[in-house]
Amino acid sequence: MKLISELRQDIVSGDWVVIARVRARRPHDFLGQKRVSFNQPKRTCPFETLAGDALLAYPVDGAGKKERWWVEVIPNKYPVFAKGICAVFNRAGIYQWTEGAGAHEVVVTKDHTRAFDAMSDEEVELVARAYQDRYTILKEDECAQYVSIFHNHGRLAGATIRHPHSQIIVLPVVPPDVGRSIKGSEEYFREHKKCVHCVMVKFEQEEKARVIYANERFIVIAPYASRSAFEIRIFPKAHSAHFEKMNGEERRGFAHALRIALAKIAQGLENPDYNFFLHTAPIKDEKKHSHYHWHLEIVPKTAIWAGFEIGTGIEISTIAPEDAAEFLRKIKV
Amino acid sequence: MKLISELRQDIVSGDWVVIARVRARRPHDFLGQKRVSFNQPKRTCPFETLAGDALLAYPVDGAGKKERWWVEVIPNKYPVFAKGICAVFNRAGIYQWTEGAGAHEVVVTKDHTRAFDAMSDEEVELVARAYQDRYTILKEDECAQYVSIFHNHGRLAGATIRHPHSQIIVLPVVPPDVGRSIKGSEEYFREHKKCVHCVMVKFEQEEKARVIYANERFIVIAPYASRSAFEIRIFPKAHSAHFEKMNGEERRGFAHALRIALAKIAQGLENPDYNFFLHTAPIKDEKKHSHYHWHLEIVPKTAIWAGFEIGTGIEISTIAPEDAAEFLRKIKV
Repeated sequence: MKLISELRQDIVSGDWVVIARVRARRPHDFLGQKRVSFNQPKRTCPFETLAGDALLAYPVDGAGKKERWWVEVIPNKYPVFAKGICAVFNRAGIYQWTEGAGAHEVVVTKDHTRAFDAMSDEEVELVARAYQDRYTILKEDECAQYVSIFHNHGRLAGATIRHPHSQIIVLPVVPPDVGRSIKGSEEYFREHKKCVHCVMVKFEQEEKARVIYANERFIVIAPYASRSAFEIRIFPKAHSAHFEKMNGEERRGFAHALRIALAKIAQGLENPDYNFFLHTAPIKDEKKHSHYHWHLEIVPKTAIWAGFEIGTGIEISTIAPEDAAEFLRKIKV
Repeated sequence: MKLISELRQDIVSGDWVVIARVRARRPHDFLGQKRVSFNQPKRTCPFETLAGDALLAYPVDGAGKKERWWVEVIPNKYPVFAKGICAVFNRAGIYQWTEGAGAHEVVVTKDHTRAFDAMSDEEVELVARAYQDRYTILKEDECAQYVSIFHNHGRLAGATIRHPHSQIIVLPVVPPDVGRSIKGSEEYFREHKKCVHCVMVKFEQEEKARVIYANERFIVIAPYASRSAFEIRIFPKAHSAHFEKMNGEERRGFAHALRIALAKIAQGLENPDYNFFLHTAPIKDEKKHSHYHWHLEIVPKTAIWAGFEIGTGIEISTIAPEDAAEFLRKIKV
């Protein structure tokens, strides 16, 4: 395997970072602040001329030949993690590292400019199905420990290509933030014999103040301890550790909730840049992680992380989630 | 005490966030992306017309009347944490929160545009002394658990006022990132009977590949598990848990190392925006934390944290720290 990247472990915190050597620019490439040409016109968009090597392509039901697909998954042309030998944990003196073995795929929707907030429920559902189906295949890789699925909308949120797309990254380690979420859930379960997220969903349903939207299957809330203004989390109401196990009805409820949430922030906050990502149980030890409750988090880019946030890990949100929820609840979409 | 902010604890991870109610803007204020007027001219700069209520003011030795001070510490006019009653931990249903009791001060240097990289060693040393002296006073607050000292340089690093300034925030909790660093250090000490940072400093001195600069007292390195391109850490060579206990000679070595590091990135990377912050032992249980080794971290803004970084806690650095160190070592300042 050609080494595309390596994961290095911090000797103090135990956290992992990625050193992406193939992406490595020379020091001079960092001169000045990075200026990215973002608003690629359709004719030069890399996702408009796909090479036909799709890993998956789903049409909208009843689509004609011209609309041969709505969502397509392709290998990332510039992967951070590459398929290859199973990651071995190596020593480098006092440190530990491992090869960036895994996978890096891109989930592309057909329309060059139409983002989630302007899709139909059926279109969002097809994207969710693409997430599920690729996840189900990728988790079979015996070296995979976690599959991260995320979406960057807008330049401030780290997108470098305007055409709407999500990313799927297969990792040979459980990421630190996921590990902490799992650990918190596990400890709560050990102490209370209950799923912490189930307790929270029930409490939020009763409290109502932080609920933005709910349907039969899913609830959309502004979390009590919001990490940034207008942060949103979407939970299945019924306990489930594994997002990929959603059935068709659940997926429809999820897709509708996701579309509503993104349409509300697009309309209410004038199309802010945002990230969203899934937190689901790690791949291995499925039984051990049955206490976990998968969810999706949406983080609009409303603030810059400065020295305080980076140095302490404490984020400052300048609007209370109760006020954010009240505002977003009222936005008609 | 007027409640300026509250700290809320995430029920799953145990991490804290700040909801800053006094800073709370109405939802409509978030409309569109935030545009900050940053390059305030000297005549409208809030730090050019200080109200004379300085908590501390140090002149450069031999300064005339016109240069009556080089560094001054003032209360933050818009504090996130306010002095007040000792924080009580309250319940809000299933959640926990506490008042944002503490303090928020600003460390201002006299020159409207001259940043650290262009200061003299003596001027940087005076800033370090201001950090130490305020820290020593603020830690006496019986409610204080941690004092965070940090510096935001440039708009992309979260500075909203161009005039160079650092901030000091007193917190009623030990921040999550500091807690994890302390815990890692503690566990390493329990297992190896050695300070993990001392081991690392010794290893880096032998390896040389990641050393950017060193003097008799301090070493400047690109950390093995760098979280971002050109991340830099400055460690005292001799073990010390508490930065505020530096003596004059140590402070001179520290100031010189900090100035060299910041001058190298300013020159080598064409004045990038950056944050730096101190990690030092928490205030309480001084004996229990004697295993810790204080240090300063500099994080240039070379990348945007996108969905992958926010969702996993794994940062991607696009240059190996060995290459970054080699580049910065060669920059003459």
